[in-house]
Amino acid sequence: MRAVLRVGVIGAGLIGRDHIRRLTTVLAGIDVVAVADVDAFVAAQVAAPLGATVHPNGLALIAADEVDAVLVCSWGGTHEEYVLAAIAAGKPVFCEKPLATTREACLRIVAAEVAHGRRLVQVGYMRRYDAAYRALKQVLDSGVIGAPLMMHCAHRNAGVPAFYEPENTITDTAVHEIDMVRWMFGAEIVAVRVLRPRVSRNAGSLPDPLLLVLELANEVLVDVEISVNVRYGYDIRGEILGEDGTVSLENPGLIAVRHAGRLAGPVPGDWRDRFATAYDVELREWADSVIGGGPPAGPGSWDGYAAAVVSDAAVRALRTGDRVAVTVDERPAIYS
Amino acid sequence: MRAVLRVGVIGAGLIGRDHIRRLTTVLAGIDVVAVADVDAFVAAQVAAPLGATVHPNGLALIAADEVDAVLVCSWGGTHEEYVLAAIAAGKPVFCEKPLATTREACLRIVAAEVAHGRRLVQVGYMRRYDAAYRALKQVLDSGVIGAPLMMHCAHRNAGVPAFYEPENTITDTAVHEIDMVRWMFGAEIVAVRVLRPRVSRNAGSLPDPLLLVLELANEVLVDVEISVNVRYGYDIRGEILGEDGTVSLENPGLIAVRHAGRLAGPVPGDWRDRFATAYDVELREWADSVIGGGPPAGPGSWDGYAAAVVSDAAVRALRTGDRVAVTVDERPAIYS
Amino acid sequence: MRAVLRVGVIGAGLIGRDHIRRLTTVLAGIDVVAVADVDAFVAAQVAAPLGATVHPNGLALIAADEVDAVLVCSWGGTHEEYVLAAIAAGKPVFCEKPLATTREACLRIVAAEVAHGRRLVQVGYMRRYDAAYRALKQVLDSGVIGAPLMMHCAHRNAGVPAFYEPENTITDTAVHEIDMVRWMFGAEIVAVRVLRPRVSRNAGSLPDPLLLVLELANEVLVDVEISVNVRYGYDIRGEILGEDGTVSLENPGLIAVRHAGRLAGPVPGDWRDRFATAYDVELREWADSVIGGGPPAGPGSWDGYAAAVVSDAAVRALRTGDRVAVTVDERPAIYS
Amino acid sequence: MRAVLRVGVIGAGLIGRDHIRRLTTVLAGIDVVAVADVDAFVAAQVAAPLGATVHPNGLALIAADEVDAVLVCSWGGTHEEYVLAAIAAGKPVFCEKPLATTREACLRIVAAEVAHGRRLVQVGYMRRYDAAYRALKQVLDSGVIGAPLMMHCAHRNAGVPAFYEPENTITDTAVHEIDMVRWMFGAEIVAVRVLRPRVSRNAGSLPDPLLLVLELANEVLVDVEISVNVRYGYDIRGEILGEDGTVSLENPGLIAVRHAGRLAGPVPGDWRDRFATAYDVELREWADSVIGGGPPAGPGSWDGYAAAVVSDAAVRALRTGDRVAVTVDERPAIYS
Repeated sequence: MRAVLRVGVIGAGLIGRDHIRRLTTVLAGIDVVAVADVDAFVAAQVAAPLGATVHPNGLALIAADEVDAVLVCSWGGTHEEYVLAAIAAGKPVFCEKPLATTREACLRIVAAEVAHGRRLVQVGYMRRYDAAYRALKQVLDSGVIGAPLMMHCAHRNAGVPAFYEPENTITDTAVHEIDMVRWMFGAEIVAVRVLRPRVSRNAGSLPDPLLLVLELANEVLVDVEISVNVRYGYDIRGEILGEDGTVSLENPGLIAVRHAGRLAGPVPGDWRDRFATAYDVELREWADSVIGGGPPAGPGSWDGYAAAVVSDAAVRALRTGDRVAVTVDERPAIYS
Repeated sequence: MRAVLRVGVIGAGLIGRDHIRRLTTVLAGIDVVAVADVDAFVAAQVAAPLGATVHPNGLALIAADEVDAVLVCSWGGTHEEYVLAAIAAGKPVFCEKPLATTREACLRIVAAEVAHGRRLVQVGYMRRYDAAYRALKQVLDSGVIGAPLMMHCAHRNAGVPAFYEPENTITDTAVHEIDMVRWMFGAEIVAVRVLRPRVSRNAGSLPDPLLLVLELANEVLVDVEISVNVRYGYDIRGEILGEDGTVSLENPGLIAVRHAGRLAGPVPGDWRDRFATAYDVELREWADSVIGGGPPAGPGSWDGYAAAVVSDAAVRALRTGDRVAVTVDERPAIYS
Repeated sequence: MRAVLRVGVIGAGLIGRDHIRRLTTVLAGIDVVAVADVDAFVAAQVAAPLGATVHPNGLALIAADEVDAVLVCSWGGTHEEYVLAAIAAGKPVFCEKPLATTREACLRIVAAEVAHGRRLVQVGYMRRYDAAYRALKQVLDSGVIGAPLMMHCAHRNAGVPAFYEPENTITDTAVHEIDMVRWMFGAEIVAVRVLRPRVSRNAGSLPDPLLLVLELANEVLVDVEISVNVRYGYDIRGEILGEDGTVSLENPGLIAVRHAGRLAGPVPGDWRDRFATAYDVELREWADSVIGGGPPAGPGSWDGYAAAVVSDAAVRALRTGDRVAVTVDERPAIYS
Repeated sequence: MRAVLRVGVIGAGLIGRDHIRRLTTVLAGIDVVAVADVDAFVAAQVAAPLGATVHPNGLALIAADEVDAVLVCSWGGTHEEYVLAAIAAGKPVFCEKPLATTREACLRIVAAEVAHGRRLVQVGYMRRYDAAYRALKQVLDSGVIGAPLMMHCAHRNAGVPAFYEPENTITDTAVHEIDMVRWMFGAEIVAVRVLRPRVSRNAGSLPDPLLLVLELANEVLVDVEISVNVRYGYDIRGEILGEDGTVSLENPGLIAVRHAGRLAGPVPGDWRDRFATAYDVELREWADSVIGGGPPAGPGSWDGYAAAVVSDAAVRALRTGDRVAVTVDERPAIYS
């Protein structure tokens, strides 16, 4: 019979349950054999139909022999402890973003992984798995549009949860573009500005919209409109300007309706509509890399650290209005 | 542990191997436990990495206790025998198109299934699982464009295999539209015409392109351009005209490149590019319906029979140039 | 000072007044110096602000020395008389469609023009002046898509005037495609079919929609959906299938609005929205060819005759349901 | 006979000759009766076929009785003198951009016009006459997308003339967006930043591309990518973000070609392709307003002054890298 990857999931909240659904009902060759959650009742409820073991806490789950690999889907403040434990146990770990809540915590994870000697950690930045972004990168890497010079992005949410604070517009929303541009252009972000346009009447107490400006080490300049209450739908846009041409994300509408004087197509309602497949591909490729015995195929600790550093700078830029320089440590050899 | 659907696959050619790949490496909760092929060496080669049993022939595979459900992917001439055997064994069977090679053979399958008392057979018409066609149908069924009046389709292949004979343009190519329009409009096709435009210099000895005209029982008129050597790519088009508006398939390009005086997006190269996800969804939903114990969710024997009858009529229309009326038997109650 | 073309306009109805507006307030270098209408009061009203002379009838207008060229915008039944008079007077004449109401009348005009020895007549088929159709033709003529094989068209009106009779769907609506395909492919239409789909509840007593199928002498096959009560707007579609590719009319929307879950652009409301510029270009090029002393640049008597013959056949095909062959006389040398 | 507007044109260079062509061969009801140019030979050559009088200089032309209105198409350094002379003569004057080469010169023109008591001057900012920009503004003004918050623009030239200096990227290129946003949002620009991305290898000695950031008095924030050597074509982009939706310029392609694996439409080659009609409409509406005896319908001295002030600030921002505040004087009543 085929080998089956036995995964333990820490955190059975919204995203944890969605990943469990994905691992058990969408993707072939994976079993969820263990679940842990701060709420033991929830853990039991989720585990029962799977025949999975409920562990009293994440550390116990990581230690269990039956667990080949770990998914960390718990609250961000707990990520560091679980990721460090997984590294200590030598087990591959997929950690939902953020890798950890501070730059220092991220660096501790990087240090632990470097000490371990090989990469075990993947961070949940799923844009890299979206077919459209991959097609952008393929055109860029083909050289047909020449060297990249700028990228224009927009990240628009119809609305955001009530808990959103101003810095969440950076750390929860813009962070996707922060990771994406590092991957797209293969270069670190060296400075950040946040400009504040007129505030939307839909904004509540948030600074909304924002214009984030990212300067890369290779001098590519990226601007990102962040709008988190745009009402009309979820809209992710991007165009790369190269020396000889551009490549852009197109509206992914499958159909068009002509009715009442208009030719109209649908706009995705939220990130699930837009990125559902990217999440599937992300965990598929992660599981395949783990099953294959290699390092995780996707963004690792270093990317989680870099995203944290840039996000910190962007939050400071949002507060001060200044251009904030970003300094990242030297990249250890295992991440190159 | 979760229940796993144990599938036996008859026929390990191109499509059979692709379905085995799908069942074992893409879709969760399915095992391929048995394989049979006229070429025992091929069967063994395919079965080995799966730990599946090789059966000397399809009938033995169908009879095996370990096989919960059967996939028939062998040569069309063998379909009737295997589907009838699966019905006799009371096992769900997914049969690649065509259901059988003659109208009479299809009717024998229908009769056997009716005698069995409930539906067991699904036929591999995967257009019904394509997200874009489903979105078309959703708009149509919503009533926003009013009652349907016409549909314009084009089915274009960059090229076709060397074995293509003139009637394959109907039975292998146009048959997808034949099934699709029956499903889209919930009505039988009652007459067929095939018009012959100027022949392409790329056509070899085929009549290419063709204009197929389908009349439905509800008077909806459908025209289908069939081009099988169009060189530029694989292009599937459709627009439904309703009383108050239209709904159309859009070009599914994810990106656009501006370069050298043009704004360009990609066209799919072949049916795999265009319908890969539809095949996944097709088998996912089939497996779910089988696991759930209900009848197969998709097109059944009756649809396979109706497609055969219309295809026969279209082949005759192609040969004679006449309008050919289509007569289907009365639909047994289990198919309504 | 520059030469000014002095035009006399026969018929001051809707289209006549619109052409007068065009000649006097849009296009440079043209004066409307004479007007005639069966309603002398209307003629006077239109002529006054222009300082134009009112003539008691079209023949008097044609005869007037001050009139360099004639526009015939009167009722179709009068066209033959005025066009023949203009030819007799040796004056260039632009005649709104139809050239005349019968095949025989058209042939008399052709004969008169042939006897005169050079072309004087242009007929108002303005599709040939539309930038999008011209771009289609340019791509086709470039050879990039190979030889043409088929064309798919749709001609959709939001609604039509109360006077519309069934045959108007051919003679007033489809006639634009009839002329367009003759020009596009440089070939005569040799047979016509009209298929009748389900009738729209918006159709009143009209057969609506229709599918017109045109066979050309070069074996190109053209299908034209004619819908004259489609409610949602005015929509003109066309795609040419060549051996190696296709070229199609795109939706001419200038802007897109993202709002309330949709990405939408406008659809033209009527033919004025869609073809306003084509009318301007049509009369501009006609006037330039007249000022230049050459034959009219656009469709001539022969095209008016051919359109009449094909329209007659299509009306018969609509009534009978048969495929109707079209026979045109030999084309006189002055039209080649 | 109709009244004809008699126009004198100062400057018979490229743009002057193009406007003369437009006035005499495109637009109805206008005569070019007088021409002046520093090169008397050129003036004579241009005037001869028109039967126009050649004047020894612009001032003589302005003074001529036969000249109802003046077009200033000469070198920018001469604009002030001619516009002031036209105001002194009480004659309507259309001045190509820039109104004058310094802020002070613009203010002198404003002062002269205020002293004269009514508006006589229009400046040649033709974006306001483009159908697509007008449609943007119509949607914005309709309120459907809510109050405007941001606008994203790109202004891309395939290449620029050899004389281009760094500041021309602002004063000749970005100035179109500077005027457009003032008109679009009905608000003054209060601060300017210019960010410098990686420089294109096609840039020669120019800073190319640039990201211009404009802050408006109503807090709308506008970013403008300026690329002047983008090779692939001329591309003008714009999207307005409102509180509840967006409106964007669409690619104005009339046709699409499917060929060799791609679905492609044309990109305009240069500003003539893109804005030819806008120039026609601009002069048409200007002439109509002059013939009607009212003030010029389009952008006036105040707009020319404001564009100059913002351009100055942007040039300083380009040189220094700083955010430069813009201060405009109080707007005299005749411009409100």
